[in-house]
Amino acid sequence: MSKGGKSDQEDGEENMVAWLVGLNTLKIQPFKLPPLGPHDVRVGMKAVGICGSDVHFFKALRLADYVVKEPMVIGHECAGIIEETGSEVKDLVPGDRVALEPGIGCWRCDLCKEGRYNICPDMKFFGLPSSTISWFSCSSVHPAYLCFKLPDNVSLEEGALCEPLSVAVHACRRGNISPETNVLVMGAGSIGLVTLRAARAFGAPRIVTVDVDGNRLSVAKELGADGVVEVSTNMQDIPKEVETICNVMGAKVDVSFDCAGLSKTMSTALSVTRAGGKVCLVGLGHNEMTVPLTPAAAREVDVIGVFRYKNTWPLCIELLRSGKIDVKPLITHRFGFSQKEIEEAFETSAGGGNAIKVMFNL
Amino acid sequence: MSKGGKSDQEDGEENMVAWLVGLNTLKIQPFKLPPLGPHDVRVGMKAVGICGSDVHFFKALRLADYVVKEPMVIGHECAGIIEETGSEVKDLVPGDRVALEPGIGCWRCDLCKEGRYNICPDMKFFGLPSSTISWFSCSSVHPAYLCFKLPDNVSLEEGALCEPLSVAVHACRRGNISPETNVLVMGAGSIGLVTLRAARAFGAPRIVTVDVDGNRLSVAKELGADGVVEVSTNMQDIPKEVETICNVMGAKVDVSFDCAGLSKTMSTALSVTRAGGKVCLVGLGHNEMTVPLTPAAAREVDVIGVFRYKNTWPLCIELLRSGKIDVKPLITHRFGFSQKEIEEAFETSAGGGNAIKVMFNL
Amino acid sequence: MSKGGKSDQEDGEENMVAWLVGLNTLKIQPFKLPPLGPHDVRVGMKAVGICGSDVHFFKALRLADYVVKEPMVIGHECAGIIEETGSEVKDLVPGDRVALEPGIGCWRCDLCKEGRYNICPDMKFFGLPSSTISWFSCSSVHPAYLCFKLPDNVSLEEGALCEPLSVAVHACRRGNISPETNVLVMGAGSIGLVTLRAARAFGAPRIVTVDVDGNRLSVAKELGADGVVEVSTNMQDIPKEVETICNVMGAKVDVSFDCAGLSKTMSTALSVTRAGGKVCLVGLGHNEMTVPLTPAAAREVDVIGVFRYKNTWPLCIELLRSGKIDVKPLITHRFGFSQKEIEEAFETSAGGGNAIKVMFNL
Amino acid sequence: MSKGGKSDQEDGEENMVAWLVGLNTLKIQPFKLPPLGPHDVRVGMKAVGICGSDVHFFKALRLADYVVKEPMVIGHECAGIIEETGSEVKDLVPGDRVALEPGIGCWRCDLCKEGRYNICPDMKFFGLPSSTISWFSCSSVHPAYLCFKLPDNVSLEEGALCEPLSVAVHACRRGNISPETNVLVMGAGSIGLVTLRAARAFGAPRIVTVDVDGNRLSVAKELGADGVVEVSTNMQDIPKEVETICNVMGAKVDVSFDCAGLSKTMSTALSVTRAGGKVCLVGLGHNEMTVPLTPAAAREVDVIGVFRYKNTWPLCIELLRSGKIDVKPLITHRFGFSQKEIEEAFETSAGGGNAIKVMFNL
Repeated sequence: MSKGGKSDQEDGEENMVAWLVGLNTLKIQPFKLPPLGPHDVRVGMKAVGICGSDVHFFKALRLADYVVKEPMVIGHECAGIIEETGSEVKDLVPGDRVALEPGIGCWRCDLCKEGRYNICPDMKFFGLPSSTISWFSCSSVHPAYLCFKLPDNVSLEEGALCEPLSVAVHACRRGNISPETNVLVMGAGSIGLVTLRAARAFGAPRIVTVDVDGNRLSVAKELGADGVVEVSTNMQDIPKEVETICNVMGAKVDVSFDCAGLSKTMSTALSVTRAGGKVCLVGLGHNEMTVPLTPAAAREVDVIGVFRYKNTWPLCIELLRSGKIDVKPLITHRFGFSQKEIEEAFETSAGGGNAIKVMFNL
Repeated sequence: MSKGGKSDQEDGEENMVAWLVGLNTLKIQPFKLPPLGPHDVRVGMKAVGICGSDVHFFKALRLADYVVKEPMVIGHECAGIIEETGSEVKDLVPGDRVALEPGIGCWRCDLCKEGRYNICPDMKFFGLPSSTISWFSCSSVHPAYLCFKLPDNVSLEEGALCEPLSVAVHACRRGNISPETNVLVMGAGSIGLVTLRAARAFGAPRIVTVDVDGNRLSVAKELGADGVVEVSTNMQDIPKEVETICNVMGAKVDVSFDCAGLSKTMSTALSVTRAGGKVCLVGLGHNEMTVPLTPAAAREVDVIGVFRYKNTWPLCIELLRSGKIDVKPLITHRFGFSQKEIEEAFETSAGGGNAIKVMFNL
Repeated sequence: MSKGGKSDQEDGEENMVAWLVGLNTLKIQPFKLPPLGPHDVRVGMKAVGICGSDVHFFKALRLADYVVKEPMVIGHECAGIIEETGSEVKDLVPGDRVALEPGIGCWRCDLCKEGRYNICPDMKFFGLPSSTISWFSCSSVHPAYLCFKLPDNVSLEEGALCEPLSVAVHACRRGNISPETNVLVMGAGSIGLVTLRAARAFGAPRIVTVDVDGNRLSVAKELGADGVVEVSTNMQDIPKEVETICNVMGAKVDVSFDCAGLSKTMSTALSVTRAGGKVCLVGLGHNEMTVPLTPAAAREVDVIGVFRYKNTWPLCIELLRSGKIDVKPLITHRFGFSQKEIEEAFETSAGGGNAIKVMFNL
Repeated sequence: MSKGGKSDQEDGEENMVAWLVGLNTLKIQPFKLPPLGPHDVRVGMKAVGICGSDVHFFKALRLADYVVKEPMVIGHECAGIIEETGSEVKDLVPGDRVALEPGIGCWRCDLCKEGRYNICPDMKFFGLPSSTISWFSCSSVHPAYLCFKLPDNVSLEEGALCEPLSVAVHACRRGNISPETNVLVMGAGSIGLVTLRAARAFGAPRIVTVDVDGNRLSVAKELGADGVVEVSTNMQDIPKEVETICNVMGAKVDVSFDCAGLSKTMSTALSVTRAGGKVCLVGLGHNEMTVPLTPAAAREVDVIGVFRYKNTWPLCIELLRSGKIDVKPLITHRFGFSQKEIEEAFETSAGGGNAIKVMFNL
């Protein structure tokens, strides 16, 4: 088990992995790990979160353009402990606690070379139909440069939450959030809530959160929202809700994050954002939207696409270490990694209600 | 008439101006010029172009949120000759040929102070219902810093066309066009055509223009488009038109300019632009659009609003002087400034067909 | 004294102002206020700070290229109470407590129009030999758009300190400080100290301050520096001091602020900043420097010039209001505005030692 | 020789390479090629240029911090023909003519991941003491993603010149050159001359070149400089030379490129560049410089470091293909790759005079 040494895994020891084998059906079955390359590490999984996209696949066997046609593995929020390191790995040793960044860029295409590997067309991303390995598993082989050591005061569960937090951090970078940016967050699901926390860490002086669910807005309040606005799902209400949002904000809205991605949320965001501001589209809800794009463009409000993240783990870990962001309140449910519990965990996550983040402990 | 001297105009000499007094009805009537301030100049108008927005007001007495409720003056594309200068004006003298930038920022709001005066909420812009002076007139008083001297080889008509060209230049800046940007232009009206020319001047290696009108596409070809695509107005045709555009481009589309601003043109632009690219919304067509915004955002295609221009006249004049842009082919019709000709000129412009830019010579 | 009304000042009532009439010699003498324009306000001065540049003029009758040839007025850090407002002023009323931004751009040059009014060549800046009005005075007439209302919990003294804080805020913007920027501050004088506070407000996770004076470094520690390094004035010590700075930082230096502007401070900053980082030159010390510019350029370390500020007052006031920055510890001495006290105040400021910010209360 | 097939090279066939074995001494000796990886290609070298840095090593056995301690291979400007492709290479086939980008980033460090692989601390760069392979050789194994196919109308010699042209293109990007940027180029050596051509391709309306050598300035004139200024090497002459440069430019200098990197060239560039402009430091001449950095910083003139290039080959090839840049006039001498000619070629390059670019044809 020592660095560079011969591993049982390389000889084909079986590794248990959760497979999505049908609608609402997961089976924990063996999966042989790939060989450990010189720049790879083998990580024993310890904490894995369920993401909304995992639930989508579980409930519908599809998400956006991805369709599940044969048994697939899911999961891409995790942290664990290094079990073995490849011969060229210098910064990690067995026993290190690490958070894992799931996507592996190709480093050959124009986008990777320009530093936008998050939109690399050849990215290998965990937990998609095209992927052959998941993180609802006992172990995983991963490039060492995508495994980030956790400080003593950051738990493995918090490490796993670097993944959703990374979406928020990337959104804040794309929106250029600073101490002079008043922020509106449309949506108080887990991404909306971490975006609220990240915007605060980037210095946003005023943050208002909008949602249809009063309970979630209470959580937003607890997490530090300066104001919250409960809205309807009715497009007709937009004008008066825009007025309410402006009043609650008490200042101009410089940047809006649409963490829902619906015609209504986007229409509200476009209408309420000040001339020269930005609307960041984070949530991937409606594919096609009916929105007042022209009046926004005539105020030079830009719509910024936000997809996953890049180079975010070190910052997320620093924000957790320093206490600028506390993600622990987001974890509402915990399960063990057994055949009995796994489907229950997914159903809990799918059930909504007071479930925000559901976590496995392995 | 000498610099700083007393002017007949200040005593209230009447100045003839075209007033929009009703649907399809213009009357040339007197209008008293405002006094000449120390930093102002009085310009005798020589060439004034008709803009699409002028035609909108003429045919509908409204445009976007602007409604004509009482007689108004229109027009904002012009060049002329300095007749008199205020006491503090240093760089201009009577007799200088100048192009005029129409909008006057307040220089007190946040947006002006940040250099985005084009979206100043208190801008005084010529030829709007809120404006009291127009450029379909014999003379105008204007701040000297918005009057730009024309070199000998740039005509007054070309000077007037700095206004539409400025829209294109501002769009190219907002889109960050360079020798490494392949460009798609949706629309081959006058703004689409000057955008094509401006993108070339900014170095774009390949430019493809799309329109529903074959004649306009022929003009685009003459003006240097590397390829043209004739499309329908049918939303169902988007997928196959996207494919055709890609084939004609023969490369990735880095930046698209939507110079029409319709659900269909925007949907096409969003679909065809490469991951990490930009769609600049220039044309103000449909207020509300139904567009596939989410798949574009998931490729981090940003939608950039483009409104008017700022600090563009010096560059436009240099592009005309150096011959990098030739706007003369855009002038298809010329009229004198008389009661008889003025409505005919507007009807010609409104008629479409082979009319691109209609120009008055005073 | 009511808004838009006739003012005694307009009739020429005398206003007492501190004039620099010779080396180390200030005289409080009358100065007639200019008339109140429609967009102006008259402010009764209440708190005025002494800046290092004021002291330079006092001790040397010169600063950089500016030479004092005849009696001049100095001072440009102040806050006061509105006494009268021009006819067009809408957002301020007599009695409002305001902080004043001293420089007035021309709003006609290219730089003003691009939003970089801080480097406008025609700026009218208070307290320079070219200026005719100072803020060591009882009242001042100033454009309303440069007077910023203070919230109840921000004192007039803190309002006056928005001026030096603005230098720091502008430096942080130019350096693009965020929660992922480790910061080095060279110099622990008043600008160095406010830069430390501003960098923290912009989210910098680690900040190290360097100075030759152990007492000042103690103040830096109190103001929150994560580490301090005491250095010599000897160029030979740079290599070992660079090593110490790296050790104290314990991470890469992303951005350095040179708040001294000497060959040694700049050489240290250039050597210690990571590849792809920035060195912001804030302090205007040596005119000519001998520095290892080439090895820094070969790591694409950029040198960013920082001159005064633009659009900073609203952010400074918000940072003071919210408690993110506390400038009160910087005020070490207070004086009244009398002939007896004024020279003593300047001598105190010039004396260095434990004097950081010397403040007049009027 | 077919794709993915077994190669003689892999069995260790010897490849002839030019080794720098001592001062002014090169020996062509065998060197065994590394094995061909799945994403690699083997290229038969056809055109290789001599760079100034190659000459430095040849004449001094050192360059900046690099010291030659044992026989080393040099050379990093080349183009050739694909001989064999790895099993995963999709876009290239044997027989393709390609230009080669020499530096291989690690793709694991922060700088590579942010898209700044040119300053990767672990870059493997050809022709340095740390490198084990050079391009003054018969064949080379290289990653396919760094080999760029040449169009029919671009010769192999032009392909080799993509390397110096890349420095110029990267400098123009860093300087943000556009149709509104007046450019000053300090130095008319090969990098200065390609920078002049690249700035023109990026749209620069006016370009002035400065050098101490009248002959080189004649070449600059032929290559399209709008003006040239012959200067001395005397620091005392800077003020009057600055005046001459301004007169010859006839406009503000927006961006200066210092392609020499000396105290005098940098001082001139810093003095002549307009407020808010940029000085790009391209040439790596003096390590330490004595320069008026503070007055430049007080006008917010930024100093931008420029090191090598990134993602430039596709643009360079497009600029050559379209005829926007013609590099052929830079090639002044050609040699064969034989023991007899190789030292003569280096001596020719070192001799200066009318030698600009010396090229080997293999």
